Amino acid sequence: MTMTPQSAYEELLARARKQALLGSCSAVLGWDEQTYMPAGGATLRGDQMALLAGLQHEQATHPRIGELLAITAGSSLAADPRSDAAANIRELDRDYKRRLRLPQALVEELARTTSLAQSEWVIARSKNDFVRFKPWLEKIFELKRQESACLRSATEGGSAYDPLLDEYEPGAQASVLVTLFQTLKAELVPLVQTVVERTRGSAGEAVLKRLYPRDRQRIFAEAVAAGVGFDFTRGRLDETAHPFCSGFGPGDCRITTRFDDHHFNDAFFGVLHEVGHGLYEQGLEPARFGSPLGEAVSLGVHESQSRLWENAVGRGRPFWGYWHPLARRIFHEALGGVSLDAFLAAVNHVEPSLIRVQADEATYNLHIIIRFELERALLEGDLLVDDLPAAWSERYAALLGVVPKTDAEGCLQDIHWSAGLIGYFPTYTLGNLYAARLFKQARHDLGDLDSSFAAGDFSPLLTWLRGKIHRHGRRYPPAQLIDQAAGPASLVESLRQKYQELFGV
Amino acid sequence: MTMTPQSAYEELLARARKQALLGSCSAVLGWDEQTYMPAGGATLRGDQMALLAGLQHEQATHPRIGELLAITAGSSLAADPRSDAAANIRELDRDYKRRLRLPQALVEELARTTSLAQSEWVIARSKNDFVRFKPWLEKIFELKRQESACLRSATEGGSAYDPLLDEYEPGAQASVLVTLFQTLKAELVPLVQTVVERTRGSAGEAVLKRLYPRDRQRIFAEAVAAGVGFDFTRGRLDETAHPFCSGFGPGDCRITTRFDDHHFNDAFFGVLHEVGHGLYEQGLEPARFGSPLGEAVSLGVHESQSRLWENAVGRGRPFWGYWHPLARRIFHEALGGVSLDAFLAAVNHVEPSLIRVQADEATYNLHIIIRFELERALLEGDLLVDDLPAAWSERYAALLGVVPKTDAEGCLQDIHWSAGLIGYFPTYTLGNLYAARLFKQARHDLGDLDSSFAAGDFSPLLTWLRGKIHRHGRRYPPAQLIDQAAGPASLVESLRQKYQELFGV
Repeated sequence: MTMTPQSAYEELLARARKQALLGSCSAVLGWDEQTYMPAGGATLRGDQMALLAGLQHEQATHPRIGELLAITAGSSLAADPRSDAAANIRELDRDYKRRLRLPQALVEELARTTSLAQSEWVIARSKNDFVRFKPWLEKIFELKRQESACLRSATEGGSAYDPLLDEYEPGAQASVLVTLFQTLKAELVPLVQTVVERTRGSAGEAVLKRLYPRDRQRIFAEAVAAGVGFDFTRGRLDETAHPFCSGFGPGDCRITTRFDDHHFNDAFFGVLHEVGHGLYEQGLEPARFGSPLGEAVSLGVHESQSRLWENAVGRGRPFWGYWHPLARRIFHEALGGVSLDAFLAAVNHVEPSLIRVQADEATYNLHIIIRFELERALLEGDLLVDDLPAAWSERYAALLGVVPKTDAEGCLQDIHWSAGLIGYFPTYTLGNLYAARLFKQARHDLGDLDSSFAAGDFSPLLTWLRGKIHRHGRRYPPAQLIDQAAGPASLVESLRQKYQELFGV
Repeated sequence: MTMTPQSAYEELLARARKQALLGSCSAVLGWDEQTYMPAGGATLRGDQMALLAGLQHEQATHPRIGELLAITAGSSLAADPRSDAAANIRELDRDYKRRLRLPQALVEELARTTSLAQSEWVIARSKNDFVRFKPWLEKIFELKRQESACLRSATEGGSAYDPLLDEYEPGAQASVLVTLFQTLKAELVPLVQTVVERTRGSAGEAVLKRLYPRDRQRIFAEAVAAGVGFDFTRGRLDETAHPFCSGFGPGDCRITTRFDDHHFNDAFFGVLHEVGHGLYEQGLEPARFGSPLGEAVSLGVHESQSRLWENAVGRGRPFWGYWHPLARRIFHEALGGVSLDAFLAAVNHVEPSLIRVQADEATYNLHIIIRFELERALLEGDLLVDDLPAAWSERYAALLGVVPKTDAEGCLQDIHWSAGLIGYFPTYTLGNLYAARLFKQARHDLGDLDSSFAAGDFSPLLTWLRGKIHRHGRRYPPAQLIDQAAGPASLVESLRQKYQELFGV
């Protein structure tokens, strides 16, 4: 073979770009399925998604890629591990080997099933009909079990959960998470109890449940999104049953939310969360689209961005020092007489509740830990789908002291499992832990962030994140990326400090 | 080769279905481009469209299809030309041979260019900036010239226009259209003059330019769309710069419109037009999706459906006998005091105007004839893109007696050329001619259609169209399909009769 490593590398990148383009077509169809597709389109959409997933898999497992990787891997191109080429080759090799283990039929079946199951989930949730959704959930866990078995080589052993988790958070392991979450639980449960007792009898978040007309919520949310840096010429905001962010590629990033006229938090912090994801997507280097260096490195790092903007920034006093006056003007009936202090106490109100996406910062990770434990048990066969509603109630009673009255506010509340996202939930908590470190470091590096926020200038933080996180793509493994960007910090400690200032805990 | 004709036929159908599925993915992306895509997404979308078009072309020209066609073509399967198999094989053979003549690079270049050009057209039109759009138009006509040259075999000769026309209306020829349009022009120009003179000084369509709030227009248009049979569980209505209908496949058909608060006709008859297309798409047999028998036969036949519902039905007295009372309730400020007679006179008002999609039934075909003449001249090099605005004005002055003040209301008004749709316009007039025949025949076959319309029951007509047109897909060539369904009828005669009843012409 007379091909030079350089031309092999270029062909590798061209092929990767084509795969990414196909993936971005699937992303458009997936976005449409959640936003605008009529119910009657579900079967066709499932077939379309299966076809695209199959084509993508065909391309991603093409033997030519193996040949090209063999030429480049041992070459001078990969000699300096700090070079762009070495990083791209390392990650393309990882993707290729992972893909090779998955049979095309399974990939197509998963794409079709999860497309259909998401439509079924929307209906089942709105009708509170777990029985309707049960067979879909069983099928998805069965398919994901097969996927996990394919990904684990005979020698590796380990948990069935690990190969799925590794898809979202390369290098993460269930056994490490178990220990981490054990510690977190031990710290969070008493902290929540203390704050709840201290604030008992206070107004809580009652002011946030006044009338917030949805058209005004949209105006305010878009103003804030644009204000912190989300570029609406390269993205948009739509409504879905479950909020998400989908970065199609350079110049097109879609975020979604849902509006409740009587709950300010739901849409507002949901938008800010998705904006955090969107800023990461919009911060990837357009010229690197389709190569690993132009892709987000992990969901944990993705969540570190969303949770950082949602909580560390978006529930802070400096942020609202700037936005509270505008909120009072737009929602003059609801907020006309509400002071900044009262508003801050409301948006930081701590109260064990049933719905994860509406949870406060302190209880949020307990929702995640419950899902992590349940999905592991479902995957490993220690829990039957039949017994999920009861197990859900039991875990909520134990960790949060609340029990869902319906499955819609219980195990049907999240879209993730219907979409085949098993092993995704723990990345939310990893993201929270990363975010605490990043925010502490940014404040240290940038000096007086508070007064720039209070003046409505969020660009110093965004620029810092662009430099420390966004622009690197998949150059470093996620844990290393964060270690390079930030020193240690304790999430629980930062929460304690916030609650002390707000509630005198 | 030991393959049986039956299994070759089945593989052919499976391959056709896969191509159709890929095409439907492009359709979703095309729809999104027009409806919701942010401006920044244009380049990525162009690349996505080019990739999908290239993949589809690869599949459609796969040598395997030639082998399969060779096995089936001479077999007993194709012996009875009335059989499903014979019709499918005939049409698949036509598609394959046509596709084989197009180089993949040209197909991809056309997909990318027209995707980008559509975004540029939206901007150029809104800014009235012909110079901005000019290079795109030049490039598109150049690419279409190449396409035409590829499609014409050395021996066929004929007009450069014919191979492009044939894509939309199989069997149609420019030379035949020239004669047909000559006659039509000779009849329509004096008819328009007569009606205009007779109705001079009347109220015209002034009542339709009162305030019709767009949210109410949407409610009314959707009510009528559903009322005539458009199934919103298998479709939806969105807003775009240029109205269109895109049938993705079984269960998912998207129509679009644009609202002008001060022009009732624009959105309402636009929706009814797209609904006509949508009813055809929704009337194709779902089980035949991806085979020629499950596809619309031609744009002329498609337009016969849209124009039939828009005009023959939607501008008639029986139709409004049912819907006028509802319109008066919803638009009580604009229509509270407007009688059925006055309303009918308004929606049938004849007046030479600049915008095709707002034109009345009588002048509409003159708009088409102008476009047909201009696009032929552009394609054949008899007219330079540079000279298009002047030629446009000259033709409008000659045929309609009006001259656009801006290019936005002149040669930039239609999306078609930016989308590469050269040879498409004449199918509107063919559709009008077909529709006149179909409607006359339906009235003959079904008896008292008027009283069923007046009672709000449009199902007899829809059922008749389903049986005569929709369910056949591409079983018969378009001209034959219409000849089988309907006897002769004169469009101009039916217009004369309508104007006599309404205006005493």
